[in-house]
Order: sequence, then structure tokens, then C-alpha cells
Amino acid sequence: MAERLPESEITTALAALPGWTYDLAGGCLKRSYTFRDFVEAFGFLAQLAALQERMNHHATITNTYAQVAVQLSTHDVGGVTERDLTLARALEERALGH
Amino acid sequence: MAERLPESEITTALAALPGWTYDLAGGCLKRSYTFRDFVEAFGFLAQLAALQERMNHHATITNTYAQVAVQLSTHDVGGVTERDLTLARALEERALGH
Amino acid sequence: MAERLPESEITTALAALPGWTYDLAGGCLKRSYTFRDFVEAFGFLAQLAALQERMNHHATITNTYAQVAVQLSTHDVGGVTERDLTLARALEERALGH
Amino acid sequence: MAERLPESEITTALAALPGWTYDLAGGCLKRSYTFRDFVEAFGFLAQLAALQERMNHHATITNTYAQVAVQLSTHDVGGVTERDLTLARALEERALGH
Repeated sequence: MAERLPESEITTALAALPGWTYDLAGGCLKRSYTFRDFVEAFGFLAQLAALQERMNHHATITNTYAQVAVQLSTHDVGGVTERDLTLARALEERALGH
Repeated sequence: MAERLPESEITTALAALPGWTYDLAGGCLKRSYTFRDFVEAFGFLAQLAALQERMNHHATITNTYAQVAVQLSTHDVGGVTERDLTLARALEERALGH
Repeated sequence: MAERLPESEITTALAALPGWTYDLAGGCLKRSYTFRDFVEAFGFLAQLAALQERMNHHATITNTYAQVAVQLSTHDVGGVTERDLTLARALEERALGH
Repeated sequence: MAERLPESEITTALAALPGWTYDLAGGCLKRSYTFRDFVEAFGFLAQLAALQERMNHHATITNTYAQVAVQLSTHDVGGVTERDLTLARALEERALGH
């Protein structure tokens, strides 16, 4: 099982993930994306859906029109693990320019 | 433009939409769905995406794995209109049994 | 790696998968689904997309409005393997009633 | 109802749509896209799904892993109309770089 990462490791990893923040109280990583419109936002959500199933790791996602907010957390350990960072990195690749 | 509906009309309409509630303070309709797993939840979200574009009316959606929460509101009028009820009815048809 | 199945095993397996046929020349399994409309068809396609990534096994899919045709084949072995049957069974579960 | 366009108008319009061809015998416009992987292809398919419902105009789509082939035709008139060109232009915007 993935281990819960200490805050220092998370902070170091986030230096390479601009836009992402660590919510210490919530024990999760967070990022919001703003797309051009709903169509583009949904194109991103569809990629996120496929990535989640591939990695067997699921985010909490909130969408309103062109806005997408993502929260990543590993519920089994009540915090952030390498799996959350891996999914965050994959999302950055898929949302280039946003 | 769609008109903001009075609470009495919303309450009457919701009698035919079990599971949906009216959030007076938030000025929106709400419903949560629990699906079998993420795959099924995403099948519903995809239908919801297509319906939103068809109707040119967009919800606020939160998803975590098999859970989908929907909030419907007409932002132009700061409340609930016939367009929200129409989308709620369409969702009920698409999520039969959940 | 999954092994190519002999025709006799495929035929036996298809007895439990009504609607699916084995295309001997094409070396694939086939099924067509007709949904109520595009929205419902897309709900199925979205589930299929998620299943494909989860299983790391991809179909050939053709869609026009409410029609979805699926072809399953394991390209590495040039024929049908247990992986194709597993995906076919998963699709049947997701498309109940169609 | 949209009118069937003569070949000369279609040819002129396609000059601004590199990658698209006119299939005279089939009475349709065609283009194939190759994406990086299935995830990216599905992100495009999801945008296409939303656009189709918004425009109430549906394509014939074939997908295998990272490959997406699109055929556009207006069935009511048995040929290509302005609606097909509009959808083709919208797809080009959404698939920039592919």
C-alpha cells in the first residue's frame, strides 16, 4: 500500500507542479482549471476519467461549465501518497496551457 | 429569458421528482446519486454532459468514485427556473433505478 | 501473454453472450447495440472507455447516433483471447436491456 | 432545412480545412486523427460528443486506441451541407496540432 507522505516531501514535489497546493487540514492536493468552455472542460474530464480507471485511483472533481476543481487524496491512509502525485503529474500533461 | 419560479411552484414540481430537494438559501435544486462504481457514475456524467450542451444549461457537479451530486440553478436570475426542472426531469430518466 | 483461443472454445463462450458473434475471417468478436438516442449511446461509450483503460485492452468502436458497433480482438496474437471475452462480458453487464 | 452543397462549393470550403477530404461516392466529408494514446483520443471524442448534441448533428465515428476517423454527412439530403462544414471546422479547433 502507498504510504502517507510527510509534508516536506509533498512541498518538494509541488515545486514541480505549479498551480497545485497542499491542503494540510484536508490532507489533499488541490488544483483548479479554467477552460475555454464546457466542451473543452468535458474533454479534460473525460481524460481524467480514463486516467483514474487506468491508475485505479479516483479524485474528487467539481465542475461548473468551464471550471474544474480537482482534489487528490488517498483515502486508505487519510492523506497524500505517491499515487496522488502521479495522478497530479498526469493531469498537468493533459491540461497543457490551462 | 426563463423566469425565477416562486417556492410554491418549485415545491409542487418536486413532488414528481423524488430525491430532489430545493435549497432555498442557495437558490438551487439538489440531488445526489450513488452508482455501482466509477464506471457507471461516469456513464451517467457523460449523458449529463451531452444533455447540458443540448439544453445549453449547465449544472454544478461533484463526483467522487461512485457518488455524483448535482446542483441546478439559473445564474442569470439567481434562482430556479423551468430550465432547471427540465434538466432535473431529464436526469431522472437517464438514471433510472438509482 | 493471453493465448489465441481455438474456435471451439470461442463458440462455447459465446453461448453465454447472446448478440455476440465470432468473425472467423476477421479474427474478432462482434456485437452491435442500438440505444434510445445519442445521449444514451454516449453513456455506454463512456463506460466502455473507462473499462478499456482499466483492462488495458481496446476495442474498435463505430458510432452513428444511437448505433454502436464493437469489435474485439487481441492484436498481439491476431485473434480472440480470454481478454476479449472478459471485455465482452463486462459490456453486457453495462448495456443491460439493449 | 440545410441544402446539399455542390461539389465546387465543398472543394472551395475544404481548402481551409487541411486533412479533410470529400468522398463524392459516399456523399460525405472524411478525416482521420491520430492522437498520442487512447486517453487523448477519448478527450477528443468527448468534445465531439458534446458538439454533436449542441449542434444536433451527428457524425459517424470509428475509434481504435489512438485513431479516430470521422465521417460527416447530412442524411436528410443525402450529401454534404453547411452543417457538416460547421462541425468539421469546430473539430479542427478542438484537435489543434493533430
